[in-house]
Amino acid sequence: MEYFNDLADFSVAEITELLALACKLDEKPEPRALEGKVLALLFLSPSLRTLVSFQSAMIRMGGGTFVVSPNMSIHGLESRSGIVMDGVAAEHIREAVPVIASYGDAIGIRAFARRENLNDDLSDYAFRELTSLVDTPYINMESAINHPCQSLADWKTMDDLGIPGSNGKFVLSWSWHPQPLPLAVPAATVHMAAMRGMDVTVLRPEGFSLPEVIMDKARNAAAMSGGSVTETDDRSRAMQDARVIYVNSWASERHYGNKSAEEEYKLELREWCVDEPWFENAASDCRFMHCLPVRRGVTVADRILDGPRSVVIAEARNRILVQMAVLHQMLSG
Amino acid sequence: MEYFNDLADFSVAEITELLALACKLDEKPEPRALEGKVLALLFLSPSLRTLVSFQSAMIRMGGGTFVVSPNMSIHGLESRSGIVMDGVAAEHIREAVPVIASYGDAIGIRAFARRENLNDDLSDYAFRELTSLVDTPYINMESAINHPCQSLADWKTMDDLGIPGSNGKFVLSWSWHPQPLPLAVPAATVHMAAMRGMDVTVLRPEGFSLPEVIMDKARNAAAMSGGSVTETDDRSRAMQDARVIYVNSWASERHYGNKSAEEEYKLELREWCVDEPWFENAASDCRFMHCLPVRRGVTVADRILDGPRSVVIAEARNRILVQMAVLHQMLSG
Amino acid sequence: MEYFNDLADFSVAEITELLALACKLDEKPEPRALEGKVLALLFLSPSLRTLVSFQSAMIRMGGGTFVVSPNMSIHGLESRSGIVMDGVAAEHIREAVPVIASYGDAIGIRAFARRENLNDDLSDYAFRELTSLVDTPYINMESAINHPCQSLADWKTMDDLGIPGSNGKFVLSWSWHPQPLPLAVPAATVHMAAMRGMDVTVLRPEGFSLPEVIMDKARNAAAMSGGSVTETDDRSRAMQDARVIYVNSWASERHYGNKSAEEEYKLELREWCVDEPWFENAASDCRFMHCLPVRRGVTVADRILDGPRSVVIAEARNRILVQMAVLHQMLSG
Repeated sequence: MEYFNDLADFSVAEITELLALACKLDEKPEPRALEGKVLALLFLSPSLRTLVSFQSAMIRMGGGTFVVSPNMSIHGLESRSGIVMDGVAAEHIREAVPVIASYGDAIGIRAFARRENLNDDLSDYAFRELTSLVDTPYINMESAINHPCQSLADWKTMDDLGIPGSNGKFVLSWSWHPQPLPLAVPAATVHMAAMRGMDVTVLRPEGFSLPEVIMDKARNAAAMSGGSVTETDDRSRAMQDARVIYVNSWASERHYGNKSAEEEYKLELREWCVDEPWFENAASDCRFMHCLPVRRGVTVADRILDGPRSVVIAEARNRILVQMAVLHQMLSG
Repeated sequence: MEYFNDLADFSVAEITELLALACKLDEKPEPRALEGKVLALLFLSPSLRTLVSFQSAMIRMGGGTFVVSPNMSIHGLESRSGIVMDGVAAEHIREAVPVIASYGDAIGIRAFARRENLNDDLSDYAFRELTSLVDTPYINMESAINHPCQSLADWKTMDDLGIPGSNGKFVLSWSWHPQPLPLAVPAATVHMAAMRGMDVTVLRPEGFSLPEVIMDKARNAAAMSGGSVTETDDRSRAMQDARVIYVNSWASERHYGNKSAEEEYKLELREWCVDEPWFENAASDCRFMHCLPVRRGVTVADRILDGPRSVVIAEARNRILVQMAVLHQMLSG
Repeated sequence: MEYFNDLADFSVAEITELLALACKLDEKPEPRALEGKVLALLFLSPSLRTLVSFQSAMIRMGGGTFVVSPNMSIHGLESRSGIVMDGVAAEHIREAVPVIASYGDAIGIRAFARRENLNDDLSDYAFRELTSLVDTPYINMESAINHPCQSLADWKTMDDLGIPGSNGKFVLSWSWHPQPLPLAVPAATVHMAAMRGMDVTVLRPEGFSLPEVIMDKARNAAAMSGGSVTETDDRSRAMQDARVIYVNSWASERHYGNKSAEEEYKLELREWCVDEPWFENAASDCRFMHCLPVRRGVTVADRILDGPRSVVIAEARNRILVQMAVLHQMLSG
């Protein structure tokens, strides 16, 4: 595997194979599979789960990692072209990134959306610029518009729970959050559920439609898999017979890059906090999914997170397993 | 071993077995004993020795570690119950801690005393709350009221030096320090020395008695082992025939949680800085022990630290050896 | 190998053997050569490449590392003698450094020049003080006056490129930089090129002569190897037939420790930014070398860094290979 950037680069059969490998490595560890192998981890954005699950994944297979974040370089990294570097930044990504990559057998890169210009973020411009500097295999650890490790873990979590692909209803719901969050998780999630063959409903208030390019990609995946993708602001209709509600917050397309306008716009939307009444007409065992971190009492009520619907810990634990599978395919043998 | 939280959970025979294993691993390394095994390290309080000795211990046996500290989560971790998380904290320990633990085969946790309410700290409330969220084996890397890794290393250090258990006189002395320090080390130390069968004297100025629950626990251990535990503010009487003076500072029970009151109270106590005259009527080879870090010229004179009485480097080196033994029992086979 | 502090401690034959081992480990990895071995990494100054290349090097050979930096100790490390530590620093290097070293099989130490007193820095006083506290093998990861890992990587880079030792012309050129930088890299570089038997010219503006003790050491190495060492401010003469220009900036000997005086003095020197016209009468394939990080548009023009003359990425990649060779000689078998 040369890169792991987007589930859309794989067939459903290839995903199934990765997930089978993840299960196999969970049941029967291979503590020498990657002995002497090194995964470079470049975090241009903060991380908790992603960082430590990759660190642990490599150790479990006999290899290891090193971590680079911008504050480790003297005064940070410059990324602009043609610049005279007489300010604080003492190093340019054009030197730093190829060097860091050359110290690993593969590199994982995280670079969140800048949330200034929607089209820049939708094109994944910053992430592509970084990977263009690298000639080792790479892994997307969350870019402006994708988070394939999270989506693969979520797919496995639904498999583990016996939630069916075809005819399984999947609701991706927006929730209130004090910040305008990136589109990476909702974009990856709607595509993943559609690719899995599910009937996907995006539930969001007006002004929070997912950008058309994201919806189109998901619809294409649904067309291939026999699933479907719709969008609504009608909670009751959305939740009807749902097997899963996957909750996330994301920035408004309408006010993208304008934090104060979005803040004012969503003042009335604090009721978008998931609680038991949401599940009234859902399947009785409808699950609550979330990629974490999650704000209790803001995004979701304590009784949901602490109750039987929540599978957030299982999702997080599956992160390490699917990442072991990706690393095994990328680096072993 | 399901957890390593308190020497009181073990018999003297079990401690002896752990110490024998530590010596064996020092003489005959087992670089594959823990291959593919991962120790999660959760530091809610700062660390130098504990952090790097656990990191090194796992590598020496073929495994590895990852480290989590609160500043790695976006804006820190919330721990209060029933809270609406619309402030800075973006994640709650109820999600973070089980996830972190699930990425390791065991977890080490450090959470210092909050030093606000004495009874909360004596009950080890915060640490118990954390371990209740974990279903892997865990290690206490210093809680409000315990530091079993330090005590096990100190026990081994005295064994290495031939300092006897029965009939060995052990002085635990308070020293001056600019801060009101936690009770963890003195509480663990007085218990350890009593469990080892030593005649323990706690030497401290008035107002710095160790809380009764700590003294009672040590007296119970002494009753089982044939040792004894007394308390005094008479330095000369305390040091008579002492084989070891173990120095530490701790917050005043009388002014617990009131930093400025303690500061004023201890203005006159700066002479509680260990120097050669303290040893006048001690055993001629009486040793100076301290868990480090130690403030030169404040807690102890340079000539003691740099002289033959000091065994502080040996104590610190024993940290890695006893931790290897604990990890080996917990994770191998 | 007991220590790796200075290429001058080795014969050319020993260097050749190290470089051959580096090539061998690149072609035929030895993922178990250092299993269970631990390298302690003590960084008293910031690092990117050095840190992660040592981390990766140890993993590739089956061992591991841990990292200590002063901000990990509560309130930093004290290094003065005879001090009463009632300020912010809670720990002294006399305890911290031996303990850290005792947790590893070897220790790497970085401590930049203080740039206050030239003679202190030239004597490598601070670094020697640290290594005197250590009884494991140690590696100089850049001290006030040396950077042997960088020089060994640079030597290998020239070997890889077929740049000859005898009769190869090597220009070490000063460049403009907003800060007064340490002498470690220029001192190590001029000695390395002389030891390799090259004809070395130090090109620098008036006021930026390298201190006599540095030049003398390089001349002695040249006398042994058949090379030569000269100094000039005449760019055209210096670059005549050059095979390599190695660019660096360093503090002015004349204004050492006086930042504002140096700043004013070098106001007129911003043209010391390497660009294509510099190469007019150099060998047609004359290479550009730099240890990184490098400031684009300040030290060197983009078209040089992005063009075929630049070998900076190759130099950086060779860091890991030569360090693997050093570690292998120091820790295996």
